[in-house]
Amino acid sequence: MAKITVLYGSSRTTSNTELLTKRAIDGLDATEIYLRDFIIKPIVDGRHEESGFDDVDDDYNAIIKQVDESEIIIFSTPIYWYSMSGLMKNFIDRWSQTLRDSSFPDFKENMSRKKSYVIAVGGDDPHMKGLAMIDQFRWIFQFVSMSFGGYIIGAGNKPEDVLQDEIAMLSAKKLNELLKETV
Amino acid sequence: MAKITVLYGSSRTTSNTELLTKRAIDGLDATEIYLRDFIIKPIVDGRHEESGFDDVDDDYNAIIKQVDESEIIIFSTPIYWYSMSGLMKNFIDRWSQTLRDSSFPDFKENMSRKKSYVIAVGGDDPHMKGLAMIDQFRWIFQFVSMSFGGYIIGAGNKPEDVLQDEIAMLSAKKLNELLKETV
Amino acid sequence: MAKITVLYGSSRTTSNTELLTKRAIDGLDATEIYLRDFIIKPIVDGRHEESGFDDVDDDYNAIIKQVDESEIIIFSTPIYWYSMSGLMKNFIDRWSQTLRDSSFPDFKENMSRKKSYVIAVGGDDPHMKGLAMIDQFRWIFQFVSMSFGGYIIGAGNKPEDVLQDEIAMLSAKKLNELLKETV
Amino acid sequence: MAKITVLYGSSRTTSNTELLTKRAIDGLDATEIYLRDFIIKPIVDGRHEESGFDDVDDDYNAIIKQVDESEIIIFSTPIYWYSMSGLMKNFIDRWSQTLRDSSFPDFKENMSRKKSYVIAVGGDDPHMKGLAMIDQFRWIFQFVSMSFGGYIIGAGNKPEDVLQDEIAMLSAKKLNELLKETV
Repeated sequence: MAKITVLYGSSRTTSNTELLTKRAIDGLDATEIYLRDFIIKPIVDGRHEESGFDDVDDDYNAIIKQVDESEIIIFSTPIYWYSMSGLMKNFIDRWSQTLRDSSFPDFKENMSRKKSYVIAVGGDDPHMKGLAMIDQFRWIFQFVSMSFGGYIIGAGNKPEDVLQDEIAMLSAKKLNELLKETV
Repeated sequence: MAKITVLYGSSRTTSNTELLTKRAIDGLDATEIYLRDFIIKPIVDGRHEESGFDDVDDDYNAIIKQVDESEIIIFSTPIYWYSMSGLMKNFIDRWSQTLRDSSFPDFKENMSRKKSYVIAVGGDDPHMKGLAMIDQFRWIFQFVSMSFGGYIIGAGNKPEDVLQDEIAMLSAKKLNELLKETV
Repeated sequence: MAKITVLYGSSRTTSNTELLTKRAIDGLDATEIYLRDFIIKPIVDGRHEESGFDDVDDDYNAIIKQVDESEIIIFSTPIYWYSMSGLMKNFIDRWSQTLRDSSFPDFKENMSRKKSYVIAVGGDDPHMKGLAMIDQFRWIFQFVSMSFGGYIIGAGNKPEDVLQDEIAMLSAKKLNELLKETV
Repeated sequence: MAKITVLYGSSRTTSNTELLTKRAIDGLDATEIYLRDFIIKPIVDGRHEESGFDDVDDDYNAIIKQVDESEIIIFSTPIYWYSMSGLMKNFIDRWSQTLRDSSFPDFKENMSRKKSYVIAVGGDDPHMKGLAMIDQFRWIFQFVSMSFGGYIIGAGNKPEDVLQDEIAMLSAKKLNELLKETV
């Protein structure tokens, strides 16, 4: 059975992004990680240091281990300032360290066997102004040879707005059906 | 005389991005802020809380005050994973709080009178894969009605690589001349 | 009652793009223009000629007159090579001439009062690779100050494929309801 | 010696785009094709017809034969309405027919061994609003597995404006040097 991990980048509980994502994983056994509940420090680029990267004392490694052991990763992020939240960006920036971390010798190869989805909600014309973020996720997944299964963009500003976005909700329902077939 | 503030998003000292930026501000009186030297916590979205945003105990307010008092802002960021660094993203995410902060009553109006530039260096085909980030900066500046003066993308991976990027270095020189005329 | 004009850029009859568009205008009184049935020559840029643009002997003026007299314009195009069809591009390129044509003295002002929609179907990952085209339509509409009401992207390759794209069909249905309220 | 073909999409002679391109091929033996001097009809999609595509009586095949026999292709187009000219788009749209044309049995394989460059000049903020077009060329080249060597964007509106764009002119000079090494 394929293991699903959801990474939530929202800073609010029961945010629109979370509501939409919950619809997509309804009835599925998924590990849900709320990045806001953890300490994830910004990357310190050690690629060109003789000593390489320094060990970092935070929660990143525990989370990336979960990701490493999953087959399906759902990146669930609000669109803050036309991109993923800084919370999620710091998490992804740290991949540069994991790619060189001897504790994760097969990280890149493992990533190449995973499938990823993006679920995002924004308040300022997200179907237009959120497209650059989708491009970036595409480049990110391509760099680690991860398959990009698709994305859902919802519109919402006030709490629970996204429940009125029929297209987004139907898209989440269809992703749910697809995941149930896959898993 | 126009006040220039440079926000550095690099995690390394004398990174390629910094080298390129130093060329652009050569001989100019600019306030340089290395975000890596400060604590900037991720935003906690309080827009829909009755009590609004909570005060945050970190260095953000001191930095945004510098920005608020400048006429020209240079966003200098390495391209990490096809976007600005998480360090810089967390800084920008916090603007959502400042926009509602009674200590900065004129923040949005002040921003609308500033001019911004982006200087970015990336190692993986930045003239192609960095374009989405430029789109995002455009949306960001547009949201606060800030004028977007232009951007420079340089190519570089190993330390000092960007010094060999003649086009980027000429672009920085020309921006330098332009800033000298403006200031 | 608002006048709707649909511009079809497909080269095939009953193409997927047309099927999706027909759903959006179902029950509405719309002028449908199949660009493939007309001669529209490429623009010859006369902006910098003393004599200006030359008159062109083709069907362009008759069509742009229809557009000029409408309130709502639907651009319905297959995604050919990640962009609108050349047929539709030649039509839009000619706007540069109309903007300087004394027979259409109010063209730009009239455009600024119209609302536009884009409906597009593509076969190669259109939700990713069609996004640049949406950006371009946004710039185009912005140049003439036309309001961009939204877009629908459908997936399809073989005839009638798009009818299986539930999300696209629901989006067309909802646009239909919206147009019925507006008109 | 590598054969270079330049495809010009401008409608004007000695356009800014042409001036910039001439700098890039200065001193090189290149076949220059001015698309405006030829008849290239819009594609009629015959992919799903039993009889396939109909023969088209125009100049397209003669031009695509030149392309087919070259190693380096330079797409030189003005940015009209934020994209390549309709003239050039119609040319590329027709590739869908060539891909299925038994007179060009090795078209796709041959394309995969070519290197392509894009040179484009625009008058309305081309470094921002021309980026979507670059994305599209990237997708196009990727579809036929052609290597994308790079692009140059120049700014210009009035005749000869681009000669003042120092960055673009230096970029063309450097491309010229690169081509001279390659050829």
